[in-house]
Amino acid sequence: MTKPNRYYDNLEQNLMFFKVLRKTNDFIHANPEKHIYQMGIGDVTLPLCKASIEAMHKAVDEQANKETFHGYTLGAGAPFLRNAVASYYKKRNVELSIDEIFITNGAGEDIGALVDIFDIDNKVLIIDPTYPQYADTNIMDGREIIRLCANEENGFLPLPDPNIKADIIYICSPNNPTGAVYNKQQLKQWVDHANKTGAVIIMDSAYEAFIEDPSLPRSIFEIEGAKTCAIEICSLSKTAGFTGMRCGYTVIPNELARDNRSLNRLWKRNRATKLNGVPYIIQRAAEAVFTDDGMCECMKNIGVYKNNARCIMQTLDKLGIWYCGGVNSPYIWMKCPNNMGSWEFFDYLLNEIQVVTIPGVGFGNGGDGYMRLSSFGDTNEIEKACERLYALLKGI
Amino acid sequence: MTKPNRYYDNLEQNLMFFKVLRKTNDFIHANPEKHIYQMGIGDVTLPLCKASIEAMHKAVDEQANKETFHGYTLGAGAPFLRNAVASYYKKRNVELSIDEIFITNGAGEDIGALVDIFDIDNKVLIIDPTYPQYADTNIMDGREIIRLCANEENGFLPLPDPNIKADIIYICSPNNPTGAVYNKQQLKQWVDHANKTGAVIIMDSAYEAFIEDPSLPRSIFEIEGAKTCAIEICSLSKTAGFTGMRCGYTVIPNELARDNRSLNRLWKRNRATKLNGVPYIIQRAAEAVFTDDGMCECMKNIGVYKNNARCIMQTLDKLGIWYCGGVNSPYIWMKCPNNMGSWEFFDYLLNEIQVVTIPGVGFGNGGDGYMRLSSFGDTNEIEKACERLYALLKGI
Repeated sequence: MTKPNRYYDNLEQNLMFFKVLRKTNDFIHANPEKHIYQMGIGDVTLPLCKASIEAMHKAVDEQANKETFHGYTLGAGAPFLRNAVASYYKKRNVELSIDEIFITNGAGEDIGALVDIFDIDNKVLIIDPTYPQYADTNIMDGREIIRLCANEENGFLPLPDPNIKADIIYICSPNNPTGAVYNKQQLKQWVDHANKTGAVIIMDSAYEAFIEDPSLPRSIFEIEGAKTCAIEICSLSKTAGFTGMRCGYTVIPNELARDNRSLNRLWKRNRATKLNGVPYIIQRAAEAVFTDDGMCECMKNIGVYKNNARCIMQTLDKLGIWYCGGVNSPYIWMKCPNNMGSWEFFDYLLNEIQVVTIPGVGFGNGGDGYMRLSSFGDTNEIEKACERLYALLKGI
Repeated sequence: MTKPNRYYDNLEQNLMFFKVLRKTNDFIHANPEKHIYQMGIGDVTLPLCKASIEAMHKAVDEQANKETFHGYTLGAGAPFLRNAVASYYKKRNVELSIDEIFITNGAGEDIGALVDIFDIDNKVLIIDPTYPQYADTNIMDGREIIRLCANEENGFLPLPDPNIKADIIYICSPNNPTGAVYNKQQLKQWVDHANKTGAVIIMDSAYEAFIEDPSLPRSIFEIEGAKTCAIEICSLSKTAGFTGMRCGYTVIPNELARDNRSLNRLWKRNRATKLNGVPYIIQRAAEAVFTDDGMCECMKNIGVYKNNARCIMQTLDKLGIWYCGGVNSPYIWMKCPNNMGSWEFFDYLLNEIQVVTIPGVGFGNGGDGYMRLSSFGDTNEIEKACERLYALLKGI
């Protein structure tokens, strides 16, 4: 008799994003005349850069002719794209060889798959609140989860606790959901801690392109010692609007080994078995992102999102509501007024002003009482949502 | 200290396809003037159908404009494509609801990922020889592998052995590498066996489009009782030349449960956590495959490969060499002459006539003494390779 994976029983039944969607749809169904203002969703709304569009039209035409047709690509990714990623890192003085770079179907896909190269018997440190996928993918495998509290006191940027023993440490900076960003000194503390304890850091840098403060690290490999303790997962979803394109990259340094096994080699073996390559057309679109024209246009789009973020921050400033994030991040993490819980405040905003936000408690119990506001929506909609937010909360 | 997954130690170090590539490249390096004839590779060589090309150009243009831009799609796949797959099954009188259909990044990706929903403590039955990925992905998780011998006596189509207790059973029909195809009566024996023992069959139907005999089943769900014991993994790689596109579909019936857990629901949860959807553009190209024009052109391409297969089979017939497959399959499984081992014969063909084939032993010890010949190459090249094969082997 086949035995299903019973660790799935330990997962929360309601995925938070689906619950938000369901509540929103229920409201629309009951109030079809009301307009909904999106200030929650993590999906982008601006189109792809012209360089990617042109690269894809060309690649599609290549697939139409026998002479230029492309079949399987390498599981680790096409060399042209791995070289482009290596050049991107080099701009920040991070030297990588292309066999340290793996092209992926997106950061989410690699966060889900990467844990395969680790034994079940590893303790996993998750900063709470955080993106739910880090915990869920490990719960599915049966690994023990330890939660480290992020809160207003530590600026939602907790530092290593020498009393907590963990083998795998997830860090997301700029953080989803809090928008908080570790500086070099803080990240160095994590790197030193991992090297000292033999832990491996899985660094989610999906939002690195939003960092505008040049003193802040955009890659963990800007930190000395990281190559012996860290894996970095990155994505073009937010850098270049690739949420519906699915392409990212994961870096596993050749120096990174545990128990005499190279993690780079384990992952290479995994990818050769479990991935028949990212679509050729998508890889060409991704290559175009790293050209001067492509990156320039992507940064213009990010500029639009940053203006949206500023609109939200100004509204919260006027209201005197505590928040963090927003400057070097697409997300603003706001405190719910009047000690409301996250879902209570979610319902309040949906029912009163039809503004959809993301309840902080969906990212862990440490997030209760907070909301994640997203700058990825349409500018006009966000401006109107901010006006409605101000009107509703100014007297509260 | 992080513990790597030590089960990777149990994998063979040399992936067979890489060994073939290395040997071929070594030969080219030593003999740069010699032309290589490809009769090994499982990759396709004909371009995509026009319907897919047009659909992609349109989808790319949609991604260039804010009004038509598509971000994240559902982890389980876009409804338009799931509906197209359901209609495709309906042509063979298989009724599926769209929530039983999951759009994937390709069959290889799902073969690698699907085992996540099963406990480590399941015994896995693999037919030997077979596609190496079934075993490798389970070895990586530490599951016990039982091998069932396929050989000339059973036509490389072994039937259930009541003395062998397994929980997960992999079946590939039309088979890779042997090209053998189970008929309905044989497949019914597997379905009955699985329902009786509580095992789950993972059916790899990647080559179903090559079946021309209308009496042969193209889906396991054509067999009564399959919905309570089978998962089917399918691919557009060979149906529509999607090897570099990466798109397939997996069917998990709602009726399929073990230990009171719906496997469909477990997989839905897995996909919601580990997959942020297949690229929108690729899903539109896949949708176009299922249109009348798309499918007609794809079947024309398959016709070209089938002509290649006939050329190979006629050559082996003239030589009096035993083989199977080739009629309802892109692969021909030939016996090496003079009791040569697979690698010995591989080297012989490479060195003497520069024809690259795939050693049968790469698919399991039961494949030693056989070779997999592929019809996916260029027709002119295959014709020349056949002439060279005939000239070399006619006197042997």
